This record gives sequence, structure tokens and C-alpha cells, in this order.
Amino acid sequence: MSGHDVPGGCYHLGILGGGQLGRMLIAEARLLDLRVAVLDPDPDAPCAALADRFWCGSLDDPAAISRLIDACAVTTWEIEHINIDAVSERVEHGAVVRPDPAVLRIVQDKAAQRRRFAEAGLPGPRWCEFPPGNVSTLAAFGFPAVQKLRWGGYDGRGVTTLHTTDTQQLPGPSILEELIAIEYELAVLVARALDGSVVCYDPVQMRFDPARNICTHVIAAPPQMSLIRPEIALEARRIAQAAVTALDGVGIFGVELFVEKGSTGRVLLNEVAPRPHNSGHYTIDACATSQFAQHLRAVLGLPLGSAEIFSPAVMVNLLGAGEPGPVAVDGLERALSVPGVTVHLYGKRRSVPGRKMGHLTALGTTPEEALERANRAAACIQIHGASASQSQGGHSG
Amino acid sequence: MSGHDVPGGCYHLGILGGGQLGRMLIAEARLLDLRVAVLDPDPDAPCAALADRFWCGSLDDPAAISRLIDACAVTTWEIEHINIDAVSERVEHGAVVRPDPAVLRIVQDKAAQRRRFAEAGLPGPRWCEFPPGNVSTLAAFGFPAVQKLRWGGYDGRGVTTLHTTDTQQLPGPSILEELIAIEYELAVLVARALDGSVVCYDPVQMRFDPARNICTHVIAAPPQMSLIRPEIALEARRIAQAAVTALDGVGIFGVELFVEKGSTGRVLLNEVAPRPHNSGHYTIDACATSQFAQHLRAVLGLPLGSAEIFSPAVMVNLLGAGEPGPVAVDGLERALSVPGVTVHLYGKRRSVPGRKMGHLTALGTTPEEALERANRAAACIQIHGASASQSQGGHSG
Repeated sequence: MSGHDVPGGCYHLGILGGGQLGRMLIAEARLLDLRVAVLDPDPDAPCAALADRFWCGSLDDPAAISRLIDACAVTTWEIEHINIDAVSERVEHGAVVRPDPAVLRIVQDKAAQRRRFAEAGLPGPRWCEFPPGNVSTLAAFGFPAVQKLRWGGYDGRGVTTLHTTDTQQLPGPSILEELIAIEYELAVLVARALDGSVVCYDPVQMRFDPARNICTHVIAAPPQMSLIRPEIALEARRIAQAAVTALDGVGIFGVELFVEKGSTGRVLLNEVAPRPHNSGHYTIDACATSQFAQHLRAVLGLPLGSAEIFSPAVMVNLLGAGEPGPVAVDGLERALSVPGVTVHLYGKRRSVPGRKMGHLTALGTTPEEALERANRAAACIQIHGASASQSQGGHSG
Repeated sequence: MSGHDVPGGCYHLGILGGGQLGRMLIAEARLLDLRVAVLDPDPDAPCAALADRFWCGSLDDPAAISRLIDACAVTTWEIEHINIDAVSERVEHGAVVRPDPAVLRIVQDKAAQRRRFAEAGLPGPRWCEFPPGNVSTLAAFGFPAVQKLRWGGYDGRGVTTLHTTDTQQLPGPSILEELIAIEYELAVLVARALDGSVVCYDPVQMRFDPARNICTHVIAAPPQMSLIRPEIALEARRIAQAAVTALDGVGIFGVELFVEKGSTGRVLLNEVAPRPHNSGHYTIDACATSQFAQHLRAVLGLPLGSAEIFSPAVMVNLLGAGEPGPVAVDGLERALSVPGVTVHLYGKRRSVPGRKMGHLTALGTTPEEALERANRAAACIQIHGASASQSQGGHSG
């Protein structure tokens, strides 16, 4: 595993996708002196300057995908939207890709994912397949019904709520789900090793901007201080571990769940992200093993590390604001003056309103203190597109 | 502070020296999307593959030093053996170098360092200057006397103990120090910001291989679990903070102290390293802010972070063993199977017996558990020079 020695290829690790998740994975790979190759269509991707080898190419292009996979001892992905057929073809020829592309094939299709979890007896919203425009299926399912496109939706895209058979529907193969009255959303990070052993992080609470349906806050804490009731946390861990095992996944997985409003307080499985997850960024600053170190251990066939959390922590995504343009960061110094705060910038060259440009983590003695610190620090820092003049001299503390 | 914006130069940070300390500093700089340039004489230095710009050149060469400093908004060093005159000359012309080279000039000269600390009223061993061969000075000082070369000694080199005027002496300007009966050695990491504010880490115990005089273990723990008595820890912190303030230092400093044997239990100042320090590597895994993140904050003029330690931790240096040659790592998988263990490899291309090739940190619920885990993990891992055949296929988990 040392730098000079790469069985089966030129690089220890290949990453399909060169975004911030890949960038944080490379940072961990450096600790083990691993050589990393990356494929991404954006020449300015966050990984471009950091990878030992960066190939600029489409994640849909079989030739580009083969070149990466064939040059690496182990390949993983940091984004779901890749050409699975091309990846599977290399695996059939003996290449090592973890998790297995079969996992991604299931997860990419919301119907297949729901079916797999139902077969495993895991609790989720009532659902059915919905061939586009099939009014009888819709009427039989009942209203309100949440229509989700089977493929390609994310961050609230590809989802709509149908109130009658006349409501405007999304085009394309879909599923219908009952509309859940959500008390709050949870995420559980699960790491699963080659030998099937599993390490599970403590459940965290995710808070969203309802307008943009983007996660704004992740609230993590040791069990004794958690905002999540113990019986809810226990059930969430049980479901999350079972879901990743049902997928036969290897690596780190972000499992999203709902807690239902009202007396029932049911914990329902929403969906699984087969990669490091936004809800797990706090682990870099607050846990014994970060989600990226954990993913690396799992895909390299190494033993998993401890998921112990040391401190309440709140993660806030730093989104681009103002005008699009060359990235400018204001208020970094003021943000870092808030106790317990760490700022992570992703090295994206252009700021676009709503784009994830970085995140910050605030530690505190309680979740409430961490939340207050995170909000105070986030209010200090502004990432935006710089005007030409700003981008010359621009950064102000 | 964002990647596109480098006031006054092409790079945010310059580092004189490209060893493991620089490498771990670069890892932290990535979190803030900083561009880093490095100067080191070794084309295979640990920083060579990671810096945005790596210049291969002598740390004694004024032209090479000027090129680095003039290309960077802020420059620091990770090794003391650099041409101070060349650095000072750039500072006189307005370049920003932190700490100030004046600090290094004092620290490089054991007589000047002792004098500065004595002027500040800090407790240390009795000492005097020792012009080479000056028998009357030696006789007047008394025996046993520890002779230390004023310049250039480290890791036990440049030090000898004189028992009579006839004992073989080291050539060159020296100091004499009383021989202290040492109960154990402490280190205190002190970070000092531009505004003079100071953050002090909890004192750690350093254990040495007496034969090679290399630090083998660093034992860190939260105060309530520390192996260091509270009154000793308090005194060590007081002395360490005063020493760094007496130097008017900016950045992170490793302050080494002795605890004297016997009833007195005096805490004596040994010496100060004006840079990240081997005794502080545990902070990467066990503290809210690593010594590298802290150094970065200080030299960039940002507010200091929290020095809180989350868990007992023991750091063990991983030294090259066996034959010299292309680096081969054995037993990584077994080492990582020990709970709470993280392995850090420095990316050195050649293993040389006794060379620092990496380190590991073990966390535990007590210092004793962390120590047991660290020793168990360190016994699993072997870093050595590979034979040609090994270096082709060699890494075995």
C-alpha cells in the first residue's frame, strides 16, 4: 500500500467523479501515501489540482471509464451519475471496483431500491411503480401521492406531489409514494467492509431549506447528548445497517430516513447514497475516523476504524451567493474567530448561487452551543462570484 | 484567502523545507484552498508531489530562498537549518516570513536561546558559554558538565558529557550545562498569533530510545487522565507560554522541558523548536485543531483554534528498519486492525534505518490503553528497504 507499489496498475485508487467528495477522499489517501487518479468532465473540478493523475472526460464515456479503471488497483465513485454498463464491463474482465456497480444499478433506480428494501423487510413509505400517465394506477394508489422519477432525480428534482389524476405529472418511468408527514429527517453513515463487517456512526439530524430542498444543517452529538431519542436512534441504526447489508455494499453509505409525525413516530427508510455523504462531513472534525478515511479503508480491503464521536458538532453547507463568477471568499477570518469552528473550502473556481462551495463545522459542549456557533460563523462568511476587480485583490478577512 | 486570490505573489504559502512537517502543513492548507510552494534540496522530498510548486534547491542558497519568498504571500519554515541571512534580507525588503527570522537566529544558537530565556527569568539548567578548549571555564563550571555545540546539533548530535578537563571535547563554540537527573521529559505545544494571543496544548510526556536519542513515544491525555501531575502540568504550561512570548514568536512552537528527579521535582526549560513538532503529531487525530492547522492560522494572521484534546492518545514514530532501499511497508492491515489506530506515512521514497518514515496514533479510553494499542500496532508494521523483487510486488497487508 506504499507509494511505490501499486499491484495491478499505475495508481492505488481511481475515483469516478472529481468533486468535493473526491477531493476529501484524496486528502485521506495522502496519509497512506497512495497514488490517486480521477476522471471528471470539468477541467477545473476540485480534484483536478490534487490528483496524481487527472483525466478530463465524460463519466458516460466507456473509453474514458476503462482508461481510469484499468490504470487503478481499486476504483470507486463519488457521484452516482456514471455509466454503469461501462463500469460493469470492466468488472466482468476482472477489474476491482468498490462498491460493486450492481449496488449502483439498484440505487440509481428508485423502484429497484424500494423493491430491494421491501424484500429485506425494511420499513418505508407505501409505494408502487408508476408507468407514466397510467391513471388507473394513480387512482388506485390514492392521494396525495408523491411521484418520483425512477432515474436521475436529486436534491428535490424529479419529485412532485399529485393531488388528483389531473395534477401535472412528471414525464418518464416513476414510482408513487405515500406522502409522509415528516417530523424530522435523519441520516446514518454505515461503513461495510469486504468481510461484511459493519461500523455504524451515530444518527444525525438533517435540516433542509424547504425552498431549495438543500440540506443546510447536520446536527451530530454523542448519544447521551443527542437530540434524537434513544429508541429512534436505535431503530435508525438497525434499519440503516440492514439496508446496506441488503445491498451487499462495500464502502461508506449515507442512509437517509424519516421520522414520522405523531404518536406512531415510525422510522422510515428514505434512500441510500452509495458513497461519502454530505451528512457525514462533520466526521472529519468530530470523529475518530472520518467518513473518507472509513471509505478508503473499506474499498482497499483494510479493517474499518472507530466511528466514535468526540463532541457535539454542527455542519453547515457554504453555498455560493450573489453573482456567479470567479470565487471570492469574504469573512473567513471572522468565521474562524468563532470558537470550535473549522472551514472547509472545496477549491471550486467559479461561485454559482446555490452551489456547494464548502462547509463549516462547529464543535460545542452541547448540540445547542454547536448550532449557535455554526450559525454565527456561517453568517460571517460569504462565498460569491467576484467582479474582475475583486478577483484581483479581493479576499477580505 | 481563496485559491484564485493571492495578494502579493503567486502562492498563498511558501515553505522552506519539504519534509513530513511541510507535507502535513500542505494537507491543512488544502482545506482552505491555498496554493503552496516549497523549496527543498531533495527532488523526492515528501512535499515534492503535493506542493502546487516544488523548487528543488538548497536551503542555504540565497537565490533559491529569494525565489520562494518573493513568490509567496507568506513564507514559513519546517526545518531550522536554513540560511537565515538570506531570509532576513528578504524580510528587510518587505517580504512576510513567519515566525520572524530573528526567532530562528536565537533558537539556532543554544547560547543565545539560553540567554534569552534566562533574561525572561525562566528556569533552566545552570549554564555558561564555553569557548572551545577553555580549560579554566570548564574547571570553574565543575563536573559532570554537558557540552553542547552552539550551532547545528540535533537528535543527540553535538552533545557530550565531560567528566574531567581531560575528557574528549567537541570542537567548536559551545555551552556547558549542568547534568540534570531527569525523571521524564515533557513537551508543550504553544501557538502564538500575530496579536500576541496564545493557545497552549496540554503537556505531553515524551519517551526516548536512549541508544539513538530519538523520541519513540508521545503520551497525551486530557488533564483529568494525564500521567503528568497537575502542578507539574501547570508549571510546564506557564514556562512554555513565557518562552514563546520571550521569543516574540508567531506560529506553533514545540517547547521541550525536563522534570528533575527527586524531591524538588523542578520543571526546567530545555529548548524550543520554532515549528510544528514531532511531539504534536497526535493533535491531528486527538485534538480540535491540529498543530498544522494551528500553525497555518497563526502565520496567515487568522484567529487561533481550540487546543482541546478529545481522547488519550499515544504517538509512535515509524522508523525505517532493515536494509536501506525503495520503501516497502509490511503489516499495515494488521496495524489498522488495532482499535483506535491511524497510520500516517510520509511518502519518502527511500527507507533508511532509523529514518522517520511515518507515525501512528492510537486513541484509547485511558493513556494506558492507548499506549498498549500503540505498541501492539507498531509491532505489526515494518517499514524497510525493499529488494528489487519486493519493490515490484511487495506490499503485504
